[in-house]
Amino acid sequence: MRILGIDPGSTVTGYGVVEREGSALIHVAHGTLRPPRGESVAARLAWIQHGIAEVVAQHVPAAAAIERVFVRPENPRSALVLGQARGVALAALGAAGLEVDELTPQEVKSAVAGTGAASKDQVQRMVQRLLALEKVPAQDAADALAIAICRVHRGRLAGLPARSRTGGGQSRARKSGDWVVRRSR
Amino acid sequence: MRILGIDPGSTVTGYGVVEREGSALIHVAHGTLRPPRGESVAARLAWIQHGIAEVVAQHVPAAAAIERVFVRPENPRSALVLGQARGVALAALGAAGLEVDELTPQEVKSAVAGTGAASKDQVQRMVQRLLALEKVPAQDAADALAIAICRVHRGRLAGLPARSRTGGGQSRARKSGDWVVRRSR
Repeated sequence: MRILGIDPGSTVTGYGVVEREGSALIHVAHGTLRPPRGESVAARLAWIQHGIAEVVAQHVPAAAAIERVFVRPENPRSALVLGQARGVALAALGAAGLEVDELTPQEVKSAVAGTGAASKDQVQRMVQRLLALEKVPAQDAADALAIAICRVHRGRLAGLPARSRTGGGQSRARKSGDWVVRRSR
Repeated sequence: MRILGIDPGSTVTGYGVVEREGSALIHVAHGTLRPPRGESVAARLAWIQHGIAEVVAQHVPAAAAIERVFVRPENPRSALVLGQARGVALAALGAAGLEVDELTPQEVKSAVAGTGAASKDQVQRMVQRLLALEKVPAQDAADALAIAICRVHRGRLAGLPARSRTGGGQSRARKSGDWVVRRSR
């Protein structure tokens, strides 16, 4: 199961591709999409969308995930701008026929750091550790990888027989930090 | 000069295509795009974008226009949702290489009804009159046509020699209601 996580933004859009093989969590790819400055908003949005479509074409994920947005009432202007970037990301995924899960920021942070209150920093370091990356990924890419890991994690739970899911033993004791890690080939 | 006006929305996106020939304002096309209910947000956004791309391919506008959004602080959630639809509309136009002008709601209303305080209703009726349409267009399509008319109007002023623009005489006396109207062929 290969999952594409997207962290959309008008200036930087992060993406991360993670895959599960048995109990192993495998890093496939990550990066950031930065539309050229000085272009019009329309051209920049088209650029972001094209970039996501290319990532999908290159890595052929089985599904995608994105963070749910809890808009802060004090900042509706940035909600509109974020909405625009998020819209083109969703449309790119939808056009590729991918199902897109929306995950809460708390779920994502819990999946990689064990707590919904984890800092940005902590998420970056845990993503590096969980995927055995040589470098700490850039913040937006780390967020996208965390989203993908969270979705993979969910998929794994959903895929387990009911008994294993609720029963004790190894699978219950295993937390996100216990993922068996394999490097990308 | 053929202009495409877009009034984006997550449930209904209006479009209108208007063209200028000399001093004549010509209706080319208008309609609404309504993504199928029950689909995922991603699929609906992809659908809207595909629809706009089709309108562009069919009518080959020279430029496009959209309304500037003044987000009301009390409703950031709808700002996000509107942003998503607006983002895919902008990306579709940007991908087609079209320049997109952003017009204020006041400019658009003034262009068709002579006042920035015109009601939705008034805009619909004036659009019908200015373009000599047999029926009153649906609200979202009427808004899109009004946006296109406003952009055509701007383009006409911009295209005039400076003297005619500031000088007196006929061109000064002509207001939006005085457009010479020709039906679409």
